Amino acid sequence: MKGLARTGRGAPGWVEKEKPVAGPRDAIIRAIAIAPCNSDVHLIWGEMGNFLPGDRIMGHEALGVVDSVGNEVRDFKVGDRVVVPAITPDWSTVPSQQGIHQHCNGPLTGMPFDMLKDGTFAEYFHVNDADANLAHLPDGVTVEQALMVVDMMTTGFYGAEMADVKLGDTVAVFGIGPVGQMAVAGAHLLGAARILAVGSRPNLVELAREYGATDIVDYRKGDTVRQIMDLTDGQGVDAVVVAGGNASTIGEGLTVLKNGHTLANLNVMEEATLPIPLGPMAFGLGGKTIRGDLCPGGRARMEKLLALVKAGRIDPGKLINYRYTTFEDLLSALMVMHDKPKDLIKSAVILE
Amino acid sequence: MKGLARTGRGAPGWVEKEKPVAGPRDAIIRAIAIAPCNSDVHLIWGEMGNFLPGDRIMGHEALGVVDSVGNEVRDFKVGDRVVVPAITPDWSTVPSQQGIHQHCNGPLTGMPFDMLKDGTFAEYFHVNDADANLAHLPDGVTVEQALMVVDMMTTGFYGAEMADVKLGDTVAVFGIGPVGQMAVAGAHLLGAARILAVGSRPNLVELAREYGATDIVDYRKGDTVRQIMDLTDGQGVDAVVVAGGNASTIGEGLTVLKNGHTLANLNVMEEATLPIPLGPMAFGLGGKTIRGDLCPGGRARMEKLLALVKAGRIDPGKLINYRYTTFEDLLSALMVMHDKPKDLIKSAVILE
Amino acid sequence: MKGLARTGRGAPGWVEKEKPVAGPRDAIIRAIAIAPCNSDVHLIWGEMGNFLPGDRIMGHEALGVVDSVGNEVRDFKVGDRVVVPAITPDWSTVPSQQGIHQHCNGPLTGMPFDMLKDGTFAEYFHVNDADANLAHLPDGVTVEQALMVVDMMTTGFYGAEMADVKLGDTVAVFGIGPVGQMAVAGAHLLGAARILAVGSRPNLVELAREYGATDIVDYRKGDTVRQIMDLTDGQGVDAVVVAGGNASTIGEGLTVLKNGHTLANLNVMEEATLPIPLGPMAFGLGGKTIRGDLCPGGRARMEKLLALVKAGRIDPGKLINYRYTTFEDLLSALMVMHDKPKDLIKSAVILE
Amino acid sequence: MKGLARTGRGAPGWVEKEKPVAGPRDAIIRAIAIAPCNSDVHLIWGEMGNFLPGDRIMGHEALGVVDSVGNEVRDFKVGDRVVVPAITPDWSTVPSQQGIHQHCNGPLTGMPFDMLKDGTFAEYFHVNDADANLAHLPDGVTVEQALMVVDMMTTGFYGAEMADVKLGDTVAVFGIGPVGQMAVAGAHLLGAARILAVGSRPNLVELAREYGATDIVDYRKGDTVRQIMDLTDGQGVDAVVVAGGNASTIGEGLTVLKNGHTLANLNVMEEATLPIPLGPMAFGLGGKTIRGDLCPGGRARMEKLLALVKAGRIDPGKLINYRYTTFEDLLSALMVMHDKPKDLIKSAVILE
Repeated sequence: MKGLARTGRGAPGWVEKEKPVAGPRDAIIRAIAIAPCNSDVHLIWGEMGNFLPGDRIMGHEALGVVDSVGNEVRDFKVGDRVVVPAITPDWSTVPSQQGIHQHCNGPLTGMPFDMLKDGTFAEYFHVNDADANLAHLPDGVTVEQALMVVDMMTTGFYGAEMADVKLGDTVAVFGIGPVGQMAVAGAHLLGAARILAVGSRPNLVELAREYGATDIVDYRKGDTVRQIMDLTDGQGVDAVVVAGGNASTIGEGLTVLKNGHTLANLNVMEEATLPIPLGPMAFGLGGKTIRGDLCPGGRARMEKLLALVKAGRIDPGKLINYRYTTFEDLLSALMVMHDKPKDLIKSAVILE
Repeated sequence: MKGLARTGRGAPGWVEKEKPVAGPRDAIIRAIAIAPCNSDVHLIWGEMGNFLPGDRIMGHEALGVVDSVGNEVRDFKVGDRVVVPAITPDWSTVPSQQGIHQHCNGPLTGMPFDMLKDGTFAEYFHVNDADANLAHLPDGVTVEQALMVVDMMTTGFYGAEMADVKLGDTVAVFGIGPVGQMAVAGAHLLGAARILAVGSRPNLVELAREYGATDIVDYRKGDTVRQIMDLTDGQGVDAVVVAGGNASTIGEGLTVLKNGHTLANLNVMEEATLPIPLGPMAFGLGGKTIRGDLCPGGRARMEKLLALVKAGRIDPGKLINYRYTTFEDLLSALMVMHDKPKDLIKSAVILE
Repeated sequence: MKGLARTGRGAPGWVEKEKPVAGPRDAIIRAIAIAPCNSDVHLIWGEMGNFLPGDRIMGHEALGVVDSVGNEVRDFKVGDRVVVPAITPDWSTVPSQQGIHQHCNGPLTGMPFDMLKDGTFAEYFHVNDADANLAHLPDGVTVEQALMVVDMMTTGFYGAEMADVKLGDTVAVFGIGPVGQMAVAGAHLLGAARILAVGSRPNLVELAREYGATDIVDYRKGDTVRQIMDLTDGQGVDAVVVAGGNASTIGEGLTVLKNGHTLANLNVMEEATLPIPLGPMAFGLGGKTIRGDLCPGGRARMEKLLALVKAGRIDPGKLINYRYTTFEDLLSALMVMHDKPKDLIKSAVILE
Repeated sequence: MKGLARTGRGAPGWVEKEKPVAGPRDAIIRAIAIAPCNSDVHLIWGEMGNFLPGDRIMGHEALGVVDSVGNEVRDFKVGDRVVVPAITPDWSTVPSQQGIHQHCNGPLTGMPFDMLKDGTFAEYFHVNDADANLAHLPDGVTVEQALMVVDMMTTGFYGAEMADVKLGDTVAVFGIGPVGQMAVAGAHLLGAARILAVGSRPNLVELAREYGATDIVDYRKGDTVRQIMDLTDGQGVDAVVVAGGNASTIGEGLTVLKNGHTLANLNVMEEATLPIPLGPMAFGLGGKTIRGDLCPGGRARMEKLLALVKAGRIDPGKLINYRYTTFEDLLSALMVMHDKPKDLIKSAVILE
């Protein structure tokens, strides 16, 4: 079968491999929709992926049809249309039992795709512990919608959850790429009253408003921090989600964050060091919490998020604005994520 | 009356002032025990205190006898021996109602002593909202013990609480000064199985063992991180409390912290920027949480901690190893905290 | 001034009293909108209120204009239009400092209206700790909307919060009176995917759908438990809010609740004993949590909820469908709440 | 092999069965220590166990040596001495992923022993998902100690955790059988200041004091509620754990519980209905929370608790005061738990 691999730093390339085989509790999935992620770009073009073997098939966002299952799999059978979370942990480890499934066997190992084995940029891919890591595609949820659930929605929503958004809060979301869009939507669904989204590209701004942003902060129209403080009558915000920008964005977020509240980071940071300004931290004693994590994965998480889509509470499918239709288009879809044309939100290959 | 003020940067000096007067809900306390704190040293010698007026009486650790009370005070009367928390918030503000009483009227304002008004380095001092911010000195608790509750114990314990120490955890405490000692004791009382204390001075090491440290990591005997990883079979720790060291200590703490766990900072950091190494943070996505805050104050907190002392579960009085007995000795007690002789744990003036 | 009192059990009656006077931190409010509550009905007609003196003015839902303030009040001045929470605690007590402000000085004492002093069924009423217990009526929020915030919305929302509604959950709300309506709306704003509302009256059903109910369970069309189990494919629900019914409703709620989840009660229960069926509790070990509480009050809570109204995320004003316009109408408004005509949602007197 | 089964209600009896076989991820354990539990008594003599087949081998407390493992087991090998939690869940289910592993496949199914398959009253028994549900017996922990970890300690401790015991709290523990003893110890290790233990038998009272009880409430010396209120100056307690008594004990616990706090039940309740007195619940609105659950199981939990034993923070082995040494003695050990001689704490069979 064919797959798109990291053949070297900055070198995505097609490889030919054997179709994977399911262990007793696993499933092999035939892809029907695949999306490249910004972390694939980091992993292929950045140093972050230097540890990868030269034929590792990349990708962790996909939907598919069950092609085969191991004999211990109870809830899924050949032909089922399934949603595959980006994070497919080993649920039997000590960290998983402690609620840290994203790092079940060491840092980031909750995502065996890319990190530990071939990913979803393939005609067929392998899912460990199918009963725990697949979800049925519900009636009433489209392929495009579900494809945006597996990583974008769970990641963005987790930003809002980590930032501890509460009813009536004012929230700042830095960055309105696809993850930032979902952080806006997550803050909205958690009951935020005001959501200040930091971004500037017109189509992204428009979509952020649809997802619940009440105020747009355009960093090209002046200092971001100043604008947010002005919009909040100098009070700052109750929660910050960082889903874009660079290392200094964390500092901006901490500056506008009220004492006693939380900043959640969703950015992949490749810098060696993150400089935290201590002024807004009140000498380290200001009660501001900094968190950052991979998104939650697994079946339970998928089912909850799919239930929201099915109920019509959110349409994450709107994120996809670069659509492709053949498996061979996957390279183009990836290159678009790398080249980042101005109007790009998210690219995806929809095969069925 | 007499008080010890910050008359300028690096210049502690005696001042003569009017005895303060109680508003309807306040109390005036005659000091019977006073302790200088490391933050007083920061405030007097560091830039942190440059905003202070030249006659601001310093200090926020004290015990006393009620000298007068306002007519709305219900639970305290003249002559009562009382414990005065370092943090005496305005409980009626919006942040206080949200559980953020340390920053009730802006950053660090939960501590009006030093920050907003004259402190406890005085013959008499003023306590706002006496019913909410005083506690009775219980029978069976000594003056020395209670004096160590008002800041050292509540601060150190809060470190263990912020770091979310759970039953059976392995905890690292960086620094074994008085706050670090209490972080050790707090982790112990919260049910930690192993407590790795980073420090080297013999009398501090001995006391840390008494308070519950199971392993001592002497940074002079090799790399701290390496020693902690070795002691934990390469697993790292479940919680980190930083109660000493410098800006790089945070990085060490994050390095030994397991994914999905929390580092709590108690240090006053006067640097402009705190450099967070991203390696141990897994590109910002390792699920490690960073927190830092002033200690909790107020009556409820004092009563809980005093109950522990009264029940014999901890003796914080052991922290005091430089004792003074006259009010005039307060300057010596402060200078000792500034000069930091090698065997210093904590100095205090015990008047009654 | 005039007020509507409980002159005896089942005997509401007008009384003439002195206008109250503000202490240094208090405010006197001239009512501009008043609503009777179902708990007033309980307090006047039930045994629950037998402890009340014969001239106690009832009521705890109102909006008003500041008529006078004590000299220590900072944030409110004569003429301000203010929102008055039903719960106006003493924030300086030990329970309040522990987050239990509803019971700040003993059970239910967070509501001094009715319980400890004259309430809001008066031309003027007294609010303790004005800075902590009033909120400004924001531009863009109507009097009717704000009137429904002070008790109905904070109570109903707290039901959803106590029941720990999470993103994507399926929630059952028993009862769709005004509190149940707001529990539906609260579950919706917290991100529930499905909300099963138990009720039958047509106008209430219609409004519940507007507030977010996805399924209506009409107890007149069959067994409630069976219907809920059928609607959830036998799985039951992730959270239950009881906002109506009788003592057996708790048992029904526990029966449809999944193991490991929470039932929140908002009902005033005047029975001596509540019978909990142990079958659905798995011999008391099924991991089901039962909670019930007064709503949160105070300024911070009001400001958060008003922010939601101002942002257009909810319109609680729709609850009012029996409107009155003169102070003398208050008795009629109360009697309507007692008589409960079939289409009643909530009555209110809007004076300005 | 031989096993002790429920051959009918009230009829424990020996059965002969095939030695179980390990699936790919499972282990077969040869018992080296077995303890009968009070729930075995409930299951054998009560109606609770009527659903069980007539040859179901009972028991869920044991330690053993690995006899065989499936080929996917990574961390355990033949000959390892292992600790077997009473609760050995299927970690891959939706409830387990939500932290509800005790009910992973329906109520109480986190305990497949007894409920779903043969238990530990056998020469050999089967453990599902060995890597997730076994723990190595650490050096420095005795067989007797570890045997008391698998159910008694995790259950009693969970009572204290569910009741949300905090630093400095006053806690009431109803019942000082083996689970109550561990609830006392758990409250102590979580930092309670005072622990009021309700019980009367002299050897149990003595042991409760060793584990941390500060006050003993003997129900034969007067009304329990009255005694607790007197001991707490009429304030009541911050947390209640019910580990003994009968249905009315819950009512007593709620009566002495402060508003805003939690009662945790650990009792197996076979009554059809639990009568909750509404007086102490303030009409259902007193902010008192009622919880009850099976203990947590699995490897991570065992490792944390064993770390406490190894560190010398608790010696649960003291619970065993009826010791037996042959496998055939198991019936006697069970009958002792059923007959409950006055000095009984816990019986156990220690084979190696």
